[in-house]
Amino acid sequence: MKIGFCMLLWTTNVTAEHRPILEDLKATGYDGVEIPVFEGTPDQYGNLGRLLDQIGLERTAITVIPSLDKNPLGEDAGQRKAAVDYLRYCVDCATALGAKQVAGPLTQTLGHFSGTAPTDAERMRALDVHREAGDHAATNGVKLVIEAVNRFETYFVNTMDDLASYLDSVGHPAVTGMYDTFHANIEETDPVAAFTRNKRHLSYVHISENDRGVPGRGHVPWAKTIKAIKSSGYDAWLTIEAFGRGLPELAAATRVWRDFSEGPEAVYREGFRTIREGWDRA
Amino acid sequence: MKIGFCMLLWTTNVTAEHRPILEDLKATGYDGVEIPVFEGTPDQYGNLGRLLDQIGLERTAITVIPSLDKNPLGEDAGQRKAAVDYLRYCVDCATALGAKQVAGPLTQTLGHFSGTAPTDAERMRALDVHREAGDHAATNGVKLVIEAVNRFETYFVNTMDDLASYLDSVGHPAVTGMYDTFHANIEETDPVAAFTRNKRHLSYVHISENDRGVPGRGHVPWAKTIKAIKSSGYDAWLTIEAFGRGLPELAAATRVWRDFSEGPEAVYREGFRTIREGWDRA
Amino acid sequence: MKIGFCMLLWTTNVTAEHRPILEDLKATGYDGVEIPVFEGTPDQYGNLGRLLDQIGLERTAITVIPSLDKNPLGEDAGQRKAAVDYLRYCVDCATALGAKQVAGPLTQTLGHFSGTAPTDAERMRALDVHREAGDHAATNGVKLVIEAVNRFETYFVNTMDDLASYLDSVGHPAVTGMYDTFHANIEETDPVAAFTRNKRHLSYVHISENDRGVPGRGHVPWAKTIKAIKSSGYDAWLTIEAFGRGLPELAAATRVWRDFSEGPEAVYREGFRTIREGWDRA
Amino acid sequence: MKIGFCMLLWTTNVTAEHRPILEDLKATGYDGVEIPVFEGTPDQYGNLGRLLDQIGLERTAITVIPSLDKNPLGEDAGQRKAAVDYLRYCVDCATALGAKQVAGPLTQTLGHFSGTAPTDAERMRALDVHREAGDHAATNGVKLVIEAVNRFETYFVNTMDDLASYLDSVGHPAVTGMYDTFHANIEETDPVAAFTRNKRHLSYVHISENDRGVPGRGHVPWAKTIKAIKSSGYDAWLTIEAFGRGLPELAAATRVWRDFSEGPEAVYREGFRTIREGWDRA
Repeated sequence: MKIGFCMLLWTTNVTAEHRPILEDLKATGYDGVEIPVFEGTPDQYGNLGRLLDQIGLERTAITVIPSLDKNPLGEDAGQRKAAVDYLRYCVDCATALGAKQVAGPLTQTLGHFSGTAPTDAERMRALDVHREAGDHAATNGVKLVIEAVNRFETYFVNTMDDLASYLDSVGHPAVTGMYDTFHANIEETDPVAAFTRNKRHLSYVHISENDRGVPGRGHVPWAKTIKAIKSSGYDAWLTIEAFGRGLPELAAATRVWRDFSEGPEAVYREGFRTIREGWDRA
Repeated sequence: MKIGFCMLLWTTNVTAEHRPILEDLKATGYDGVEIPVFEGTPDQYGNLGRLLDQIGLERTAITVIPSLDKNPLGEDAGQRKAAVDYLRYCVDCATALGAKQVAGPLTQTLGHFSGTAPTDAERMRALDVHREAGDHAATNGVKLVIEAVNRFETYFVNTMDDLASYLDSVGHPAVTGMYDTFHANIEETDPVAAFTRNKRHLSYVHISENDRGVPGRGHVPWAKTIKAIKSSGYDAWLTIEAFGRGLPELAAATRVWRDFSEGPEAVYREGFRTIREGWDRA
Repeated sequence: MKIGFCMLLWTTNVTAEHRPILEDLKATGYDGVEIPVFEGTPDQYGNLGRLLDQIGLERTAITVIPSLDKNPLGEDAGQRKAAVDYLRYCVDCATALGAKQVAGPLTQTLGHFSGTAPTDAERMRALDVHREAGDHAATNGVKLVIEAVNRFETYFVNTMDDLASYLDSVGHPAVTGMYDTFHANIEETDPVAAFTRNKRHLSYVHISENDRGVPGRGHVPWAKTIKAIKSSGYDAWLTIEAFGRGLPELAAATRVWRDFSEGPEAVYREGFRTIREGWDRA
Repeated sequence: MKIGFCMLLWTTNVTAEHRPILEDLKATGYDGVEIPVFEGTPDQYGNLGRLLDQIGLERTAITVIPSLDKNPLGEDAGQRKAAVDYLRYCVDCATALGAKQVAGPLTQTLGHFSGTAPTDAERMRALDVHREAGDHAATNGVKLVIEAVNRFETYFVNTMDDLASYLDSVGHPAVTGMYDTFHANIEETDPVAAFTRNKRHLSYVHISENDRGVPGRGHVPWAKTIKAIKSSGYDAWLTIEAFGRGLPELAAATRVWRDFSEGPEAVYREGFRTIREGWDRA
């Protein structure tokens, strides 16, 4: 098992100026960081990868579908082609970065709704997008890791059962799923069982407190959750995703209207212990 | 303690055509129903009140601030006057209905965001609106009951501490607060303690499962929650709020993209037992 | 030719309390009024129809598709069924009102965008909705009159050519089109020619100044426009649609952030003369 | 007088890959181009400036306020500080680019509405932001050029009179105004008179057809408009702003749902002649 930390607590665009933070994450014990791929070129991610190599941090990538013109569910063929192109671009950046996966709500434009449940036609369209982007990912030795996100931000897959069912249909070795404790807390009647029941598809885990603050301070049942993950044989990343008010633009986008802690250090130091000690005890 | 059920599972506009549902709620054991005040006239609510009298159901009222022109936080004096007028209208409808309170996120236009945390100026404006509307409520023997709602739907008060602090400032006998288990599950590091710590301001409780489905089927800690409520001396309404896909327009507005149960009957029958038996055991 | 005035300048819900306004419209010379069908029951529209009979005003109806659950372009069959049901409801209200048509942007949920141009599949879905609703309209002797609306509010049909092409496909005697000078001013390279070129499909005209204020005070080329309409043989309604700040909720919805005139009287008195005198001179 | 062309027809991020387009604009006769400052660093704009020097094109800069966290009208002091910082960043990029001005709707977050007319408090806040950013602009020999934009995209200043009145209040030599024929066509009862009446504040002009397509193909009264501009003594940029579907993301953002012409070449070649010949004839 490896412990990671998502850089979205500070920025959507990690650069050399974040070196002090990255070094302190390393010093805290983190195995790696989750790097947002929201903008920039593969060359820039190559530079960032070299910086991370120097510091000794592994890395994963995270993204969102930012706009409707590249909606994987879009009825217009141009939208789906743009979705594939966008996911290919993310894979290229991840490859340059030295990441083995691109995670996130890769199924739909974040925050957009059709006003009803996902249709079969939308599922078919998403399938094609993910299979085609999956081929490119496979070629690069990268995995696409699809996240189920709560109802207020997405509608295509809100639960782990939805996600697993969708991934059954995709049936692509480079397209897998992830579990996020924050979203599961909202959507799952039994968040721990939802992990266990669908673990066959899960290759990535986000550790996120119920309020998206410091893991360990809220009411996510950490002992039970980590025990279930460990006993399932899962041996990949446990990456903390937390949000704060340090970057006002991102705070507005993630609906963070108050401080959840005294500062980022609390999140990554205390959050690290929650995982490390939880795992060791599990 | 009284057990209630919110009619928003079926409609935003309760009329005589809902009589069979109302009668089955009565037969199930409910003491009363929560009636949406979203449209209509006091006369219409008077008629509905008489229907409820015949059936033998007590009632409470619920509303939202539907549009920016009547935003209590609005900088334009016309917006706040319209907010007061709207809350007065709700009080008048509640009075005609025979309800003793109007509950809901009465602090801001639902779904609208400034892009940042609430400001002191917004708090001052809200105070004036709620005090003025509170005077009208007091005259009618009605209470305004302010709900803290999760970050994805509102920004003014997301937590019970925020709410209690705001109500301390309002300082009006007819303006009180409510606790909702669904929102607390998202926002509170310890949802039960958040109730207990702020109970001095709480005159109403929404019983809502973490997925807004059938109370008792999810992971809200019902035993612990109900025990805390009962042991606090709270002796007022425990009203179930659940959402479904029966009314597509409301489903879209509440972001319900799947069925949470086999139907409304499951929600109100099983939910009733969750409360009744939970209370008796507590 | 008949001259009408749209009641949206004052309200989305015309009732007996608007009698003084209706009487002054009659006294000003209007042949009829355009009545919003946004809420209420056929019975209520029947009452309103009797009031208009007493005053001596004819009437047309106007509506919008208010929410995604009833989007005629929606991929989910339930959305289209709800769209048909909604249009049938509008027809029933119009019939009770004594109106011979229901006009408006009946093609899509107002203000919703897919992020790209309309697709062929969306056209096919809309066709089915309008044909089915058109059958119900025909049965009641009512016409559905589809409005092309500017790009900022809709995407399905923005121009008169788009509209005519769509209506060619619909091919239903009870489904026709309308021309609105405000939208044409934004979308048409030659607004007058756009009317003339597509007049075969046009059964209704909205007279609306380029700023949606007083017809005659702006830069819509009224003489040329009215001359083209008259010389085309068009002999139906010329109905003024203007917006103001009298109803703050509607002002917000229609993006009216300033006063366009000294008051509603200016709009309907001066607007009437613009049409009456323009027609007589044309 | 100089003739410019806005690169937003192709991209929000001009780089060396756009060299062929830039060279053809030069060959067509353009004096300069309008460069979007939406992302990137001053260093990158410095590189672009050198490219433009090689080609022989002058340049201006354009931007928008992209998110609420930096809303100049925001009630939170942090929002206004972020607005000032953002405008300073734009000035720094413009300076590196070799541009003498940054234009655009610099008054508010694009597409955000309070639900009512701008308040006096909002005006006071905007004043402070623009004066402070104006000081930084003055230090760099750059001007901030505020655009009045139509009601569907903004609410703070929709008309030239609003803009001039606001600029009277700002009273800062580095903060001026611009005239855009597209927006004026929607908002002004007499677009040409609106220019003439407010020319004392106008240091920049956008030439944009009523449908945002090819200048000269629509109904903007070009002869009269250009004559008024020339006879006013205005001797600065006439810059074409047009939009198309070449960049789907920008098309979605600017609500372009159809092609307005056979391609970009038509826009810049025919548009150039409209200005050049119009000016010579005026």
